[in-house]
Amino acid sequence: MNNIEVVLTPALLPLYDVKGKIVVVIDILRATSSICVAFDNGVKRIKPVMTPEESKSYKKEGFLCAAERNGEVVKGFDIGNSPFSYMGENMNNASIALTTTNGTRAIELSKEADAVVIGSFLNLDYLCSWIKDQNKDVLLLCAGWKDKVNLEDTLFAGAMIHNLRYLLNPCCDSSIAAEDLYNLAKTDLYKYILKSSHAHRFKDLGIEEDIAYCMKQNTINIIPILEGDFLVKLNR
Amino acid sequence: MNNIEVVLTPALLPLYDVKGKIVVVIDILRATSSICVAFDNGVKRIKPVMTPEESKSYKKEGFLCAAERNGEVVKGFDIGNSPFSYMGENMNNASIALTTTNGTRAIELSKEADAVVIGSFLNLDYLCSWIKDQNKDVLLLCAGWKDKVNLEDTLFAGAMIHNLRYLLNPCCDSSIAAEDLYNLAKTDLYKYILKSSHAHRFKDLGIEEDIAYCMKQNTINIIPILEGDFLVKLNR
Repeated sequence: MNNIEVVLTPALLPLYDVKGKIVVVIDILRATSSICVAFDNGVKRIKPVMTPEESKSYKKEGFLCAAERNGEVVKGFDIGNSPFSYMGENMNNASIALTTTNGTRAIELSKEADAVVIGSFLNLDYLCSWIKDQNKDVLLLCAGWKDKVNLEDTLFAGAMIHNLRYLLNPCCDSSIAAEDLYNLAKTDLYKYILKSSHAHRFKDLGIEEDIAYCMKQNTINIIPILEGDFLVKLNR
Repeated sequence: MNNIEVVLTPALLPLYDVKGKIVVVIDILRATSSICVAFDNGVKRIKPVMTPEESKSYKKEGFLCAAERNGEVVKGFDIGNSPFSYMGENMNNASIALTTTNGTRAIELSKEADAVVIGSFLNLDYLCSWIKDQNKDVLLLCAGWKDKVNLEDTLFAGAMIHNLRYLLNPCCDSSIAAEDLYNLAKTDLYKYILKSSHAHRFKDLGIEEDIAYCMKQNTINIIPILEGDFLVKLNR
């Protein structure tokens, strides 16, 4: 039986070996949710980059440039981290350069893995059904908040473990904790998330609608996967 | 209102500032439980050291030398990490040099704090009642297992937050998660802990009795506190 483990923040990733494993990058509020939405709206590829400057440098190559820091769209950018920013007709066949506070860094840190895929509540079941066919160890990498643990990423990791536990062995205490928290919260994820520090922080930003949207489950049957330097839609 | 935060493993401690705060070091299985037992049995002082060699070097000064690695007594030592090793008559007025896999390192990392105290289920209420009088921010530092998160330390942090939440503000998602897990487990802590990876790992070592002992609550009215290089019994 293959193993499934939760890495509660990128700061703990050095304790784990990503080689030979599938890494699921998780940044529920909002990077990985928005990446799923983008591909569902026809985006062709997304280049995760580390800085707003790097994002902007792709403009001359015809990319849409997206940048978020501390929950806000970076000044001078049209697109930040909101799922609603990835729904327009301009998404069709677009290339996007994207940098976010936590999510794109987590992707960068995972590059040595066998496969790096993007998880969110929006594509939960579809992602789990693909993982069931892979016969590989799985690392669930929570992007967290500036290297600290956050509830929403932990809950999603718990949801995946709950979904996969008869096929994969949850072999660390983080996995047990994440699944138990998910079971506690699953009847009303939105309400549970509202008590997290993240939701409190974002209340001033007026993104409750984003949060509610990111808690929807199984609305998208797409898996974004890293191929070389780009996220693309996985062909199954 | 002062803050209370949980640091789920020592690997995350660099994200927090310990200065001006009370740090509670938590290594439930078994270092901080055993330290409480030692003082309850008359020990005068404990010198936390980093290596078995360093522990042994204190023998010529009349110290009892204790060393644990990977759950076992280090070869050549009489005392390891079991609470039952700290109950004999030889404990009366003794000085001990102690090194353990996780706990003593967590103490070392906390030295810049305003106060470093030792927490376990054994002295839970007594420790909380002292903290209530201090008017300081509190960091709950889980020693974890080789820098990974473990359930039993997380549960104890949750128990402290549950006890202190009307006086201190749990200001991070780790605190919310820890308290929710504690509330889930509190009706039978021992049973809950038995499903952790730590308990599984230790099953082969035959220390179920140690685990049961370390889950007892409020049997000891002592707070071990770091004074200079030594843990001593706090005078209230």
